[in-house]
This record gives sequence, structure tokens and C-alpha cells, in this order.
Amino acid sequence: MTGTLKTVAPTLQVGSARMPQSADGRLHAASALAVLGLTQASEWARHDWESPHWAAFEHAHQLSRLLSDFGAGPEPTLSVGEFVALAARTDTAPARRIQRRMEQNYARALSGDIHLAAEIAERNAEPLARSWLHARLESQDARRSLMSAAARHGGHGPVFGQLGSVSNRSVLGKDSATLRRERGVKQTRDGLVTDELRRLSYLDAATAAALDSAQVQGNEAILELHRRVAERERATWAGGLERAG
Amino acid sequence: MTGTLKTVAPTLQVGSARMPQSADGRLHAASALAVLGLTQASEWARHDWESPHWAAFEHAHQLSRLLSDFGAGPEPTLSVGEFVALAARTDTAPARRIQRRMEQNYARALSGDIHLAAEIAERNAEPLARSWLHARLESQDARRSLMSAAARHGGHGPVFGQLGSVSNRSVLGKDSATLRRERGVKQTRDGLVTDELRRLSYLDAATAAALDSAQVQGNEAILELHRRVAERERATWAGGLERAG
Repeated sequence: MTGTLKTVAPTLQVGSARMPQSADGRLHAASALAVLGLTQASEWARHDWESPHWAAFEHAHQLSRLLSDFGAGPEPTLSVGEFVALAARTDTAPARRIQRRMEQNYARALSGDIHLAAEIAERNAEPLARSWLHARLESQDARRSLMSAAARHGGHGPVFGQLGSVSNRSVLGKDSATLRRERGVKQTRDGLVTDELRRLSYLDAATAAALDSAQVQGNEAILELHRRVAERERATWAGGLERAG
Repeated sequence: MTGTLKTVAPTLQVGSARMPQSADGRLHAASALAVLGLTQASEWARHDWESPHWAAFEHAHQLSRLLSDFGAGPEPTLSVGEFVALAARTDTAPARRIQRRMEQNYARALSGDIHLAAEIAERNAEPLARSWLHARLESQDARRSLMSAAARHGGHGPVFGQLGSVSNRSVLGKDSATLRRERGVKQTRDGLVTDELRRLSYLDAATAAALDSAQVQGNEAILELHRRVAERERATWAGGLERAG
């Protein structure tokens, strides 16, 4: 294969600069330092990384010495986090441009800029990452639909939190706080795999549909219906697993 | 409605802090400055924004004086961009925490962190934004499938760029450079609306499917097939518009 389809070595693009990246995502230090306008340090990283100058530079910037082979033997690398931290603390013209980019990026992230969300998702080469993103956004939509349906059927106050707890406990087998602790995430949804998100969407949507076709009114009746739907969903999922096993 | 469904005034969350936001997305300056630990300026913004102190602060930080009513009469506001720029230049403990957040955010964005993409998309309250995000990611996948199909059928070199040009010109009625200029975007896909992205996905997928079921081999034959599919797609779309009109 030729043209746009040839396999290229991974690079990280920042503005118009491209830096070679190792298979585990670390940057070629000499290239990254050159992008920041740190010419002297870039030279050390390329030719003289066993010198005391480079050791002092590493120490001053708290860099981890992890070497990687980009085709010319082992060379120093920077994590993307180290590169960004260094860019934030460097006072050269190219580093200041990256600082402005960083600020714009943060302002766009805070504002929920959907173009930025798309750019970030497109940078992710993992084929399953998109399915996960879709499933996560779907699950948020389904949760909202469930809450609206509950409100239309006279749900109020605590029922909104309780519906979510029933869903989470039914699909995940534990409460959200336990899950966050076990999986080391700050937000529950960051810790869920695609199938868990799909099950949550399905369950929340199924109860929302059932509410709209049933004569159900008030917190107790809504929760009771949701618990029944949750029980059936668990049976469906488990039954599929048994037949597959 | 009560509980989680009540309509709340919009706020912007940064870490654990929440700042009131006007309908057009500007931050309540007194709250935002307090979040940055700029207590004195926050007091001026709240009680004394017609004073020379506040005017000097605005001038020093190049803030635009746009007032908004958050319930207590007109008060100064900051754009999210002004808030972030101020955070980057402020040397207080809370501003330094925001600076670290900003760096982490940028490192995650550069790395294509799909959780960050999801968080940003979830911050977007616009119902059509998600359809757009899905359509954009789909269109990238469909384009890739078309390129792979072309490669399987002996396509090489210039054909990859040409296939994309045929798609863009057929759906958009102009080349990408013209579109970027007219719509004021840096990347073509940022300038496309959901229906244009859907048409591109459909067209690219239709040619990929046709390639795999046809005895087509080599650049010329591939492009010829793609042009025919593109022509039919335009006729389909235009026909639908006529019947609807």
C-alpha cells in the first residue's frame, strides 16, 4: 500500500510541529525540546544524554529517564505530560505559542466545544474507543429520558437519585461509590466498559417506555416498575451468557 | 418538577467550584475572581465596578466591559477565555491548581483521551451537537473504509487524495480549500453540517461496498466507479428535496 495508507511511525502533532512518538506514547526528547525552542537541551538529548548537563536538565525539570529506540539506538523520551509541563514553564516564543494553545484548549473544553471533542476522539487510534464514546453519550441520554418519564408520571424528590441507584446496582452489581473506588475513577461513567453502558442505556430506556405505556403514578409505583424491568434485564443478560457458555 | 429535574441557572464548573453563567455563556466576574483567589478584585466587581480601581483592573487584564444581570442588576462578566487567560497569569494557590488542571487537560487532549472527549461532549447542552459528533466520527470511519477498499482493489498513490476530492466536491459543490475559506474554519470537517457529514459517509460507504462487489482494479476504474456513485447520490438527495418542496 502506498499514498495515504502506508503505515507511518506514530507522531504527535502540536500546531504545525510533529514529534516522533514511541509505541507506548512517549515523545522523542530531542525533537520535543526543539519544538519548545530549547535548542541546547535538544542537542544534549540527541548527542550527549549521558553527560552531566543532560542529567542536570533532567533533574531540574523532574524528568524520568526512560529511553526508547526511534531507529538510532536508545534515546531519552518525555511523556506527553512532561512535555506539556515543560512547555508551560518555558519562556521561548514557540513555548509561549503552545501556552496560548493550552489556554484556548482549556477554554474550549470548559465550554463543551463539540469540535474539540471530535478532534480529541479522532486522535484516539483505539478502534473500540468510539464505541465506548457513543455508548457513554447514549447512556447519558437514556438516563435523562428516564428522569423525564418519571417526572411525567408524578415522580418527585428522591426518586431521581433512587432510579439511578437501582440501574447502577442492577447492572454493575454494586453501588457507584464502591465501583469508583474499585476501578480507581473519579466519575462512575469513566469506570464503565461499553457493555455496561449499553446495559444501562437499555434498562433506562426500557423503563421509560414502560412508564409511558403503563398507568403508573408516583414515586413508589415508578421505582417498583423500574425494579421489575431491572430484574428482567439481568435475567436476559445472564441467560445470554449461559447459552453462549 | 423537583429534585434533579428542576431548571437551574447555568453554571460553569471548574474543579469543585461553580460560577454563575449568563445565557450567552459569560461568567459572573465577582464569582470567577473569587474562584481565582483574587479577593480584592472580586469585591470591586461585586460592589464597586464603577470605580477607578475596577477600571484599572479591567485595563491591566484587557477585559471587555460587558455587563449582565444575574438577579442583582447589571454586573461585570468575564468570557470563559478571559477567565482562563487570567487563571494562567495569576499566582495564587487556587489559580495554580487551575494551571495544573489546564496542563492535564492539554496533555489528555493531545493523547486523544476518549474520557475527556466524552466529558466535553457532555458539557455541551445543545441537543444537535451529539448528532454532529456522531456524524463526524462516522464520516471519518467511512472515509477510512473507502481508502482500504481502494487499496484492496489496486489503488495507489494519488487515488487516495482524489477519492476524497470527488466526495467533497460532489456533496459540498466546491473544493475543500474554498469551503474552509467561505466558512472560516481551519479543518474542512469543522465547517460541515450534520447532513453534509451524513452524505459524505453514505457516499464513501456506498463506493466501498460497490468496489467490493465489482471487478474493479486500479486507480482509473476506482475513480470512475466513485464518480458514478457520487452522481447517483446527488440525484437521490436532489430528488428528495424536490419531492419535499
